[in-house]
Amino acid sequence: MTSVPTAAVLLIGDELLSGRTKDKNLGFIADYLVGLGIDLKEARCVADDEGDIVAALNALRARYTYVFTTGGIGPTHDDITADAVAKAFQVPIGHHPRALEILLAYFKEIGREPNEARLRMARTPEGATLIENAVSKAPGFRIGNVFVLAGVPKIMQAMMEAIAPTLDKGVPMQSRSVALQGGEGDVAKPLGEIQARYSDVFIGSYPFEGVGGFATNLVLRSRVPASLEKAEAEVKALAEKMTREGTARGWS
Amino acid sequence: MTSVPTAAVLLIGDELLSGRTKDKNLGFIADYLVGLGIDLKEARCVADDEGDIVAALNALRARYTYVFTTGGIGPTHDDITADAVAKAFQVPIGHHPRALEILLAYFKEIGREPNEARLRMARTPEGATLIENAVSKAPGFRIGNVFVLAGVPKIMQAMMEAIAPTLDKGVPMQSRSVALQGGEGDVAKPLGEIQARYSDVFIGSYPFEGVGGFATNLVLRSRVPASLEKAEAEVKALAEKMTREGTARGWS
Repeated sequence: MTSVPTAAVLLIGDELLSGRTKDKNLGFIADYLVGLGIDLKEARCVADDEGDIVAALNALRARYTYVFTTGGIGPTHDDITADAVAKAFQVPIGHHPRALEILLAYFKEIGREPNEARLRMARTPEGATLIENAVSKAPGFRIGNVFVLAGVPKIMQAMMEAIAPTLDKGVPMQSRSVALQGGEGDVAKPLGEIQARYSDVFIGSYPFEGVGGFATNLVLRSRVPASLEKAEAEVKALAEKMTREGTARGWS
Repeated sequence: MTSVPTAAVLLIGDELLSGRTKDKNLGFIADYLVGLGIDLKEARCVADDEGDIVAALNALRARYTYVFTTGGIGPTHDDITADAVAKAFQVPIGHHPRALEILLAYFKEIGREPNEARLRMARTPEGATLIENAVSKAPGFRIGNVFVLAGVPKIMQAMMEAIAPTLDKGVPMQSRSVALQGGEGDVAKPLGEIQARYSDVFIGSYPFEGVGGFATNLVLRSRVPASLEKAEAEVKALAEKMTREGTARGWS
């Protein structure tokens, strides 16, 4: 199997850590990367603090194929992501000529004054290339293996669409889900035995509270269709046995 | 002002990074800690990988007053959090006598076989104390400044209730929100000037797509009521001026 690109997400913003905003970007990016065959390995969330952003970014970009950041690229004083990224890469920051053009044309079109704050959104670290923003024009940017995206979900999603064609892709992970009425306590041992026989299938067991009481989803993920099919058949047979024997009732 | 306790959250689980499960625990813990006056400074999400959990936990527990982990404490093969925590603290792991008692009594009550997998849920690192689970009995645990909680939101929330009385608390951060029709471009400069005058107030600007187009929430957070009140009055006056002058229409 060829090597699989890996990724990390860095969510930036006080509002996520203060509970004011409930993040929706991690789930979207996670789903999106599955479709591209890129393995999301880690996510971090830090406040609007330059030192914290720099430290997290340098740790992540050294370790993974790609890093996607969200948030902190607007015009206000608390938008410090571009400066922090420049510091992390130890390069100067300035107004990107093409970003300036895009913003000046846009502000003219909508009749807004191109003031200093608005034009802050054209600032990028030296060496960055722009990421198109189909929603509100102010671009994101890429530098090295780091993609700097907006925090507003609709804009972030448009930016992911824009960069997707430029990313190295892997064989997409396929998944199967087998539902089990009841908890994990009886299925645990035989499920672990199935897992031990399939090193190229990742089997997870996820209990949840359903309408009729606690239940469990047994989820199989793999890049090897033949293994996935065989393992799924075994897990299905196991779940059916549990249901038949009635041992899978109740929590745990 | 007395020192404020700090915290980090470590979300553990492949299912969050594969997009299968959308995390709800970070938002809950963030809100909960605000009420206790504890500053949540960072969150991380890692897969069910022992090395990744150990590295993240050791980084976070060295830096913050408290660390709260969620997920990976069930009976199946992919539940490796307790072992990873023991490894991070470099202590042995074994069946906690009181946890065994609780689980044996519970399984007897609900008529489940106390098999090896179920009793894995009684394993804790040496030196850990238990965290009550009012929902499904299998306890979480505390070791040092680390609180190991369940991943199922309902159980995690019950565990937070159980540990809240044992935590050092700070003066709760109060917040005020001022709505602004339109984007941030015109408000940015005067808002930054207000921020510069109030070092004990944190002012954030959060654009979002509302029903009638783009809008912005200006959020003030502070532990000093007098400063919060003064800064809020200035931000309100600013927002009213923007609305009156009609400069706050449209995105950016």
